[in-house]
Amino acid sequence: MARTIKVDCWWIYGNILLDKQYYWKPNNCLILLSGLSASQYLSEGKKLIDEGISDLLPNGKAYPESIHEAMRYSLLAGGKRLRPVLVMAASEAVGGDRQAVLPFAVAAEMIHTYTLIHDDLPALDNDDLRRGKPTNHKVFGEATAILAGDALLTQAFIVMTRAAGMESVPPGCILKATHEMAGALGSTGMIGGQVVDLESEGKPITAETLEYIHIYKTGFLIRACIRCGGILSQATEGQLNSLSRFGAHIGLAFQIIDDILDITGDQEKLGKDIGSDLTKDKATYPALYGLEESKRKAEELVEVSIECLKEFDDRADPLREIARFFVQRTF
Amino acid sequence: MARTIKVDCWWIYGNILLDKQYYWKPNNCLILLSGLSASQYLSEGKKLIDEGISDLLPNGKAYPESIHEAMRYSLLAGGKRLRPVLVMAASEAVGGDRQAVLPFAVAAEMIHTYTLIHDDLPALDNDDLRRGKPTNHKVFGEATAILAGDALLTQAFIVMTRAAGMESVPPGCILKATHEMAGALGSTGMIGGQVVDLESEGKPITAETLEYIHIYKTGFLIRACIRCGGILSQATEGQLNSLSRFGAHIGLAFQIIDDILDITGDQEKLGKDIGSDLTKDKATYPALYGLEESKRKAEELVEVSIECLKEFDDRADPLREIARFFVQRTF
Repeated sequence: MARTIKVDCWWIYGNILLDKQYYWKPNNCLILLSGLSASQYLSEGKKLIDEGISDLLPNGKAYPESIHEAMRYSLLAGGKRLRPVLVMAASEAVGGDRQAVLPFAVAAEMIHTYTLIHDDLPALDNDDLRRGKPTNHKVFGEATAILAGDALLTQAFIVMTRAAGMESVPPGCILKATHEMAGALGSTGMIGGQVVDLESEGKPITAETLEYIHIYKTGFLIRACIRCGGILSQATEGQLNSLSRFGAHIGLAFQIIDDILDITGDQEKLGKDIGSDLTKDKATYPALYGLEESKRKAEELVEVSIECLKEFDDRADPLREIARFFVQRTF
Repeated sequence: MARTIKVDCWWIYGNILLDKQYYWKPNNCLILLSGLSASQYLSEGKKLIDEGISDLLPNGKAYPESIHEAMRYSLLAGGKRLRPVLVMAASEAVGGDRQAVLPFAVAAEMIHTYTLIHDDLPALDNDDLRRGKPTNHKVFGEATAILAGDALLTQAFIVMTRAAGMESVPPGCILKATHEMAGALGSTGMIGGQVVDLESEGKPITAETLEYIHIYKTGFLIRACIRCGGILSQATEGQLNSLSRFGAHIGLAFQIIDDILDITGDQEKLGKDIGSDLTKDKATYPALYGLEESKRKAEELVEVSIECLKEFDDRADPLREIARFFVQRTF
């Protein structure tokens, strides 16, 4: 008899798909994965993204130099490039071409980097280390860091809307995808999550609020990357719904693992301060549920995410592999 | 014999239209203006914009409330709504409908407000008063002010790309206009101007650098508003070039008058600290050229801007009237 597990992640659906709960049968999740391993796929994708960033960012000598140096400093500081790779993998899952969505993939990394620069500012998280290097404001000063974040967010929109390199994508799809991305980043999306995160520091919060923070602050951008890949490659409504559910689950799983790595991770591998959640008295999954239960929740979410792709053929294998990588990662 | 005056504003063209200089004959500029006065047109436009803002911004009770209160605080603090009115007037100048470009007009005000909030931050200009009220960070704290700025910029892109309310505009035009706006705001546009402005404080600068700051920091957004109005209303390439030149000239004129009002203006009318340029040892037109010569330059620029519209019929009168208002304004 198939065991039925209730996955309690209604926030994901609460505002998005209007389901209150989602049930899954783990026996259905035995999907054989083929092709490239997640790490090979990620490493190939990272190379493509890094080249794209160089092409789509004003070079460090462009006037005024200081802002371009600051933008490049954080954007080229490394990072897994997970979000852009998800744009490409989602595109391929519905038969699209990773090259055609490269501008959006690069934009996703610009957006992610903008959020890191602003999050690290003294007025917000006041962090000193990011991607193994001093944070942007530590090197360039607060004023330049604020403007570098603003400029990266803006550059992302320049890149997403310029249509060059996306000739095979109808303008209506580019517009829809840009709107999708913007929506995920606004005050009722990612910024909403950042606000609640900041306001919750040092206070006891409910599991519901914690889930809100994780889903909005981290999950929304991840889900938008996946949806944009689908939209640009003209996914059907059904495919887009499945990709949304996939993205919502792995987005939350990713942040739970981030919480865990803040306790158990290797500072050198992660490239950021370890234990900073604890120092700042931030609510996390391990603090609320313990390490083991948090790990189990993340694994469950990933299994559910893979189940969401059951209608997809092996072109969705990279997405499935990346989902598995999300819970196995150590950095 | 017609007197030929050399208008020295090559920065405007340097990077944009590739002309080095622009000559004009003032005798050709005698254009009879008709219809609504600038102040009537501005006041009508302001009403429309204020209604649009209410519709296109999450309300103050949306979760999380603090960020929405902060966004609304600065956006609804008043202001002339000049930039959005320029979007509408440019659209009408090429036969478009002001209602069809309202989302872009509202977005322009969101963008302008984001720049004010970030500019006023302690790490940047450290201003206490804006639009007659305490600045955003004085009321909500630095963290919320940074995020409110981010959220307003993002909301502008949400509004520009959502296509709703712009059904008569082809998606390709919306995309092109969004790209135009983003380009004007980036590190080689407005943010570039902000960076050079900050880096120039307390240093002797050349007239060329001052012109760069004014055109990039202020002029680019004004020019983009006018171009977006044209693009959305399917202006011809020729019309768009004329609108660009018009916008470049009035953009610089606007900032020169701003410099003058920082010395001669009425703090209550302006709603911001007077004399702050002097306190911060900022380079300004009056500091470099004196008050009279600065006023003359601004008037010249406005006359040239009106000349740029010589191919347009009386539907461009609001644009012409607003240009004249730019040099006559006292707030």
